[in-house]
Amino acid sequence: MATRKDLANAIRALSMDAVQKANSGHPGAPMGMAEIAEELWNHHLSHNPKNPNWSNRDRFVLSNGHGSMLIYSLLHLTGYALPMDEIKTFRQLHSKCAGHPEYGYAPGVETTTGPLGQGIANGVGFAMAEKLLANQFNKPGHDIVDHSTYVFLGDGCMMEGVSHEACALAGTWGLGKLTAFWDDNGISIDGHIEGWYTDDTAKRFESYGWHVQSVDGHDVAAIGAAIAAAKKVTDKPSLICCKTVIGMGSPNKSGSHDCHGSALGLEEVAATRANIGWNHEPFVIPADVYAGWDATAKGAAAESSWNDKFAAYAKAFPAEAAEYTRRMAGDLPANWKSATDAIIAATNEKAEGVATRKASQNVIGALAPLLPEFLGGSADLTGSNLTSTGSFVHVDAKKPGNYISYGVREFGMFAIMNGMALHGGLIPFGGTFHMFSDYAKSALRMAALMKQRTIAVLTHDSIGQGEDGPTHQPIENTAGLRLIPNMDVWRPGNSTETAVAWVAAVERKTGPSSLVLSRQNVPGMKHDASQFDLMRKGGYVLSDVAGAQVIIIANGSELELAVKAAAELNAAGTKVRVVSMPSTNVFDRQDKAYKDSVLTPGVKRVAVEAGVTDFWRKYVGLEGAVVGIDTFGESAPGGVLLKHFGFTVENVVATVKSVL
Amino acid sequence: MATRKDLANAIRALSMDAVQKANSGHPGAPMGMAEIAEELWNHHLSHNPKNPNWSNRDRFVLSNGHGSMLIYSLLHLTGYALPMDEIKTFRQLHSKCAGHPEYGYAPGVETTTGPLGQGIANGVGFAMAEKLLANQFNKPGHDIVDHSTYVFLGDGCMMEGVSHEACALAGTWGLGKLTAFWDDNGISIDGHIEGWYTDDTAKRFESYGWHVQSVDGHDVAAIGAAIAAAKKVTDKPSLICCKTVIGMGSPNKSGSHDCHGSALGLEEVAATRANIGWNHEPFVIPADVYAGWDATAKGAAAESSWNDKFAAYAKAFPAEAAEYTRRMAGDLPANWKSATDAIIAATNEKAEGVATRKASQNVIGALAPLLPEFLGGSADLTGSNLTSTGSFVHVDAKKPGNYISYGVREFGMFAIMNGMALHGGLIPFGGTFHMFSDYAKSALRMAALMKQRTIAVLTHDSIGQGEDGPTHQPIENTAGLRLIPNMDVWRPGNSTETAVAWVAAVERKTGPSSLVLSRQNVPGMKHDASQFDLMRKGGYVLSDVAGAQVIIIANGSELELAVKAAAELNAAGTKVRVVSMPSTNVFDRQDKAYKDSVLTPGVKRVAVEAGVTDFWRKYVGLEGAVVGIDTFGESAPGGVLLKHFGFTVENVVATVKSVL
Repeated sequence: MATRKDLANAIRALSMDAVQKANSGHPGAPMGMAEIAEELWNHHLSHNPKNPNWSNRDRFVLSNGHGSMLIYSLLHLTGYALPMDEIKTFRQLHSKCAGHPEYGYAPGVETTTGPLGQGIANGVGFAMAEKLLANQFNKPGHDIVDHSTYVFLGDGCMMEGVSHEACALAGTWGLGKLTAFWDDNGISIDGHIEGWYTDDTAKRFESYGWHVQSVDGHDVAAIGAAIAAAKKVTDKPSLICCKTVIGMGSPNKSGSHDCHGSALGLEEVAATRANIGWNHEPFVIPADVYAGWDATAKGAAAESSWNDKFAAYAKAFPAEAAEYTRRMAGDLPANWKSATDAIIAATNEKAEGVATRKASQNVIGALAPLLPEFLGGSADLTGSNLTSTGSFVHVDAKKPGNYISYGVREFGMFAIMNGMALHGGLIPFGGTFHMFSDYAKSALRMAALMKQRTIAVLTHDSIGQGEDGPTHQPIENTAGLRLIPNMDVWRPGNSTETAVAWVAAVERKTGPSSLVLSRQNVPGMKHDASQFDLMRKGGYVLSDVAGAQVIIIANGSELELAVKAAAELNAAGTKVRVVSMPSTNVFDRQDKAYKDSVLTPGVKRVAVEAGVTDFWRKYVGLEGAVVGIDTFGESAPGGVLLKHFGFTVENVVATVKSVL
Repeated sequence: MATRKDLANAIRALSMDAVQKANSGHPGAPMGMAEIAEELWNHHLSHNPKNPNWSNRDRFVLSNGHGSMLIYSLLHLTGYALPMDEIKTFRQLHSKCAGHPEYGYAPGVETTTGPLGQGIANGVGFAMAEKLLANQFNKPGHDIVDHSTYVFLGDGCMMEGVSHEACALAGTWGLGKLTAFWDDNGISIDGHIEGWYTDDTAKRFESYGWHVQSVDGHDVAAIGAAIAAAKKVTDKPSLICCKTVIGMGSPNKSGSHDCHGSALGLEEVAATRANIGWNHEPFVIPADVYAGWDATAKGAAAESSWNDKFAAYAKAFPAEAAEYTRRMAGDLPANWKSATDAIIAATNEKAEGVATRKASQNVIGALAPLLPEFLGGSADLTGSNLTSTGSFVHVDAKKPGNYISYGVREFGMFAIMNGMALHGGLIPFGGTFHMFSDYAKSALRMAALMKQRTIAVLTHDSIGQGEDGPTHQPIENTAGLRLIPNMDVWRPGNSTETAVAWVAAVERKTGPSSLVLSRQNVPGMKHDASQFDLMRKGGYVLSDVAGAQVIIIANGSELELAVKAAAELNAAGTKVRVVSMPSTNVFDRQDKAYKDSVLTPGVKRVAVEAGVTDFWRKYVGLEGAVVGIDTFGESAPGGVLLKHFGFTVENVVATVKSVL
């Protein structure tokens, strides 16, 4: 029978061998955290390798994602569908074992990690999702939502600011089922950390209201005891500080940054084999070691036991059980289509002349009763983003609900939302000023990379923001978000388009959406109902004249300028089509015939948007023109600024004339 | 004679009246921090209102920049050239009193604040700059660099992750001359903070190695004693936690978020006047109050005393004094032009085929001895970014030097660098993977907004990064940086262009530069010396044939593909010009004649860059084509990926043919 040491050494061997074969990767963390992983996975983690989608599994996050061979080793050894051939192709094209753990590649990878600090924030999201869903679904005697979240993290995660934001919230929320293991190895890429990382991390986490313990990270008994103690503290998240030796087992490179981010080298690999007593060829795992790791029987039993509990729940609470199943599958309610069609039609009928942030709040208010999985929030701008609505129950520290004041923590908010979306059962949206999406850019990109349904509500979307001045006025930001692959950006021009944008964002299961909304009022506009479906295509002909000589493309608060300029030009005999383009990303996905029907090839174009002009060259070409802004804004009332920077009907008219 | 209370109330009156007149702004923080400000500015701050550029002044940062009327009040009252007419035009177009304090607008504003958390990070930069310069310039008996840095910050700054990054470093560095005042008022925009901000902040800062005190923020004696105690602790930064009442003085709105971000209303303004006993019309300050605040005589004396010290220093150390004067003026050394011309020529002569990150390291190595103000650094990727060189002395915790390992703190690094650049005397550069410039986007933008000379060294700039996979591979990022107003992005294609880019970045006094560099080798290329000046124009004709039918525009690691494709096409009879475009931003600033000489109007164009294609439409129009990438990358060796995604000579040739 394999010893505990053999089991841990299997991780070391697989990790060093895979990195050696790829001649690329990070052996240090997997080798240093092998005992922690062995104790957690073999003695605590509740999961079923044969069904990585079992909804009540414990979640495991490797926030120090560069140590990816650790999780690949664990998944392979415990019985996931990750055969040795995948391990052997670590870091090669089309391998499930990508350089960093990529969600959707290897089964059992709960989130993509590598950008440091975001994994622990995702973990906070998993644990908060569990808590909120438990509150919504569990009944006395029926704890169907009841799992833990475990996170491994390293010094890099600890140094990153997002760890502060997320871990402070975890403390405030009292996430007792979240346990994090800090790989306290004293090494980062620049070397021994004393020169740049001197925090008293235990004290820091105590200041957040965490339960903190410190152990020898190579002592499985101590680790096990700490996990048991952590479980007993149900009103605080737990941090277990694990003193480890990076690259443990390597006789000449352990304890040094030499083993952090590159292969040990054949000689050192051999020396390590001898040192740890691992007498097996690369990628060969003895049967007794596999047997010691095999979690399939235990996992099947765990899931089966939960299935029984769920069956009992379904019997007692059939509607709730059906709802749980629907929500965890990410499906929308059966009445979604009819209800949202009605919302769009009613919004259009009213045709209110309000700010699109206000129109957005109206839509949120209409959607919330339909959509119990809706989880609202804002990074301390609820009253400005207009993200809350009467039916929301606000989370208050440890008290659950379905609307979160995240505090002034934009990056933490979106990274936590990514964890919640990955968990399932919730459709999270979060608001901030559009300008401060800059703070969270990486989390928004991660949502796009992981194809997660999160919704960013980004208000105060241009110099129309006004008096707060250039630090608060997006210029390049809308264009910047549009350039992120798989991000859908919507900048609606009126209430109806805002409703359509919200419906599209909620329906989009394959990626995030950003709703870019005005602070200032925009005119009410009543559309023909035939335009509702066209809006969903991202861009459409808003108004046309036969034989149009020029097309004005506009969106958001500048749509009004396009409409008025076109009216003036048409009256004067210049034939102008107006194209409303609330989402360039969605428009770009339409077929060529449709796109050509909107932007007829050969017809000159002028784009109007209170943002950088370069972006619009893809539609107007070199012959067209753009009414935009390529400098920073100023501080003054929004209307004054828009005029100052040329967002006037007069200027749009002149610009159209200049291209003809 | 005015009482201390009158002096503090002058801030309250000016703040509430200016916000009321603008009907926009944040009266709560200035009214709550009035006593802290009065004590600090009247009894501790060393500054000269008549010379805001005195190099040894204490630096003051209002990190909670929304409370801008606080600093405008202080500047006005103490005698800066900020007349009441500017206060009266608060938040109006062209006022020096912009909505948030904007560097370069009102004299005495040391840094632009508003994006929360960055002000305290700037403050850490000011204090670190002082420490490093003191180390470089001071001599026994001659402490010519010797000033304090004071920062006001609010709950929002505390919640933001960047405060963690910067304050942890401040502790590690032992910045004894940094004192921060936390406006602990228990209120943020969403209301009372108990629901989302429960950190034990004092304990948190102790965990960073700060000296922490707690006082009643309305008790000037207690505040004064705390400042005195903070000054005595010379090896740790100090945090003074000031318990305050937001909007103090307002009888009905103090202590509530109602007074945070909007005017009190005329009625409440009147009630506040009565409550605090301020019997003066709006914008009227009695002479005795002005007299109590006037810092001009004290300031002139302070500067004069320092001038005497500096004269003595200059007598004893004339070379050092001249160097100090030069560096604080931001001028480059006298031999800069000749020396850098020689570096460029020598680099070109060698024409090494190395990665541009390696070429960059060679340039850093050549520049460092010339440029004692050079301050290198990396966010824990020194060996990957290749940002260090033999002549640098590495900062080690409390030991000064001229190269900083910032730890895994990209946002903190760039925000601290902004503070250092604003301080003067240093030209800071910092490295990270290009991908993680996303974490720091807002700080890079702030450098551009404030027109500061900071240099971002962004390596591993495309899918050529390789095995680390999509989390580490920039796609939209280079384009995204180029869209920031006043940011110069350089993506050089070989060693010579890398040298030119570095020289241009150092010479640029009016804004930041981002150097986007390859992980992988690029071929050596020897240029005719006549091209050196053309490179400085951002784009130039690299190779030409008479009657070119098509122009290939390329840069960075894809320049090679353009050159090879052109050779193949020219050999086959298609006449191709190659334009190297290392900096689109710089090229765009050239005159039309030059631009037309490079990109001849009417000639078809193909752009080649391993990044998003949309950006290039501004040069290739709708008729041209772009060889780029619009999806996320994958994990595999870089060469494999480049081929997989179509970065081949074959594909460039085919694309050129497709547009003809």
